[in-house]
Amino acid sequence: MRFVKMEGLGNDFVVFEGPLVLSADQVSALCDRRRGVGADGVLVVTPLGERVRMEYWNADGTPAEMCGNGLRCVGRLAVDRGMVDGAEFTVETPVGPRRVIVGDQVTVDLGRVTVTGSVDIDGARYHEADVGNPHAVRIVDDPDLVPVAEVGSKVEHHPRFPAGVNVEFVTVAGPDRIRLRVWERGVGETLACGTGAVASVAVSHRLGVTGADVEVDLPGGTARVRIDEDRSWLTGPARVVFEGEWPGL
Amino acid sequence: MRFVKMEGLGNDFVVFEGPLVLSADQVSALCDRRRGVGADGVLVVTPLGERVRMEYWNADGTPAEMCGNGLRCVGRLAVDRGMVDGAEFTVETPVGPRRVIVGDQVTVDLGRVTVTGSVDIDGARYHEADVGNPHAVRIVDDPDLVPVAEVGSKVEHHPRFPAGVNVEFVTVAGPDRIRLRVWERGVGETLACGTGAVASVAVSHRLGVTGADVEVDLPGGTARVRIDEDRSWLTGPARVVFEGEWPGL
Repeated sequence: MRFVKMEGLGNDFVVFEGPLVLSADQVSALCDRRRGVGADGVLVVTPLGERVRMEYWNADGTPAEMCGNGLRCVGRLAVDRGMVDGAEFTVETPVGPRRVIVGDQVTVDLGRVTVTGSVDIDGARYHEADVGNPHAVRIVDDPDLVPVAEVGSKVEHHPRFPAGVNVEFVTVAGPDRIRLRVWERGVGETLACGTGAVASVAVSHRLGVTGADVEVDLPGGTARVRIDEDRSWLTGPARVVFEGEWPGL
Repeated sequence: MRFVKMEGLGNDFVVFEGPLVLSADQVSALCDRRRGVGADGVLVVTPLGERVRMEYWNADGTPAEMCGNGLRCVGRLAVDRGMVDGAEFTVETPVGPRRVIVGDQVTVDLGRVTVTGSVDIDGARYHEADVGNPHAVRIVDDPDLVPVAEVGSKVEHHPRFPAGVNVEFVTVAGPDRIRLRVWERGVGETLACGTGAVASVAVSHRLGVTGADVEVDLPGGTARVRIDEDRSWLTGPARVVFEGEWPGL
């Protein structure tokens, strides 16, 4: 099984050209960082004429609705492999068609963001946002002072989120800059999460502490997020790290 | 640059066929688990007629004298690639020639083990052993109760060990079985360390709490160690996980 290892903002993926059916066992074996290839998740990119289809699984083998950095890697690979003609095209995802613009950086449309409410857990307020997948965003003084593994795991498994939730710990550095750490459900803390960056800006914009066009500093690098009325845009790097061949299970 | 990803007991390596010169920057980039291939270290295996040569670097780019699990992977690859004729042959390593026997499992001669002395650090006794590289072995009630990252890092950088040291935390389960966790200098805690297993058995044998032929349970699996008068033997699994091509820095 030929694959490409890709990363965007330090969020890393094993990527296959489809059509291809993968089992949960294959996905978790592939993502094992010592006994497999090692990744935050697995992507399958399937050419569909002028479009491509994206499928995504978390490292634990569970399918996921959307992955913003994964979508950016899909965009890069579709252009590199000549699956599409131009640099702007549509990717079919589990949450619907998404527009992608590929240049030095890759910009993706992550659709409408909805800030849905908030919940208090252990005395801290979590703002709930939906970017095709669920997020809980907490504003903190300094993300580096948060025990992210402990708090993230607890919020992920809170009864308020029966399907789990991604958790962002955000500090506002200015009206056009935030900094965050993210806990991804089914994965753990990662260097970056595209939908998490979008959810965080949607919340900070809604709270009035930033504008709608914001630089987002993640442990894995800097992304740019723009929130429009009915969609959101995520821009950042995406690249192939190496190519490989996996013998399978 | 074509490579093979291999693992033995969960200790994992990016392996190249040599001759090949690598820089410290290339090694550390290759070993990065998100932006590179990801590994505990890098091996170069070079055919030399009926022998092969092994070179090894830790994940941080520093060259290392010896790596027992790495040597087992070198043995497996030399047979798989037809670099040698039989299943028993010699590998030239930075600490001298080492005999290798390749079957379902791979057995390697790790040379003479010397238990050289002991030192007390923070009230705990560390027995010093040399297996071509330096080890500090501490007998504990339960390795799972030791804060390995904290204690291992402290011992590695103790003035007693100006060149650093690998640190093993060992519990004796019986006269022919021990269990251990290991802190590797320049790497951190790993799932297994072949020379660490040998050093641990040499110390437990010297202390009279085990025999000289011992099963060693590591987080990454079980190895067998035998201590002879003038050499030591390490047996365990070693396999290719996948093959790949790295574009370089």
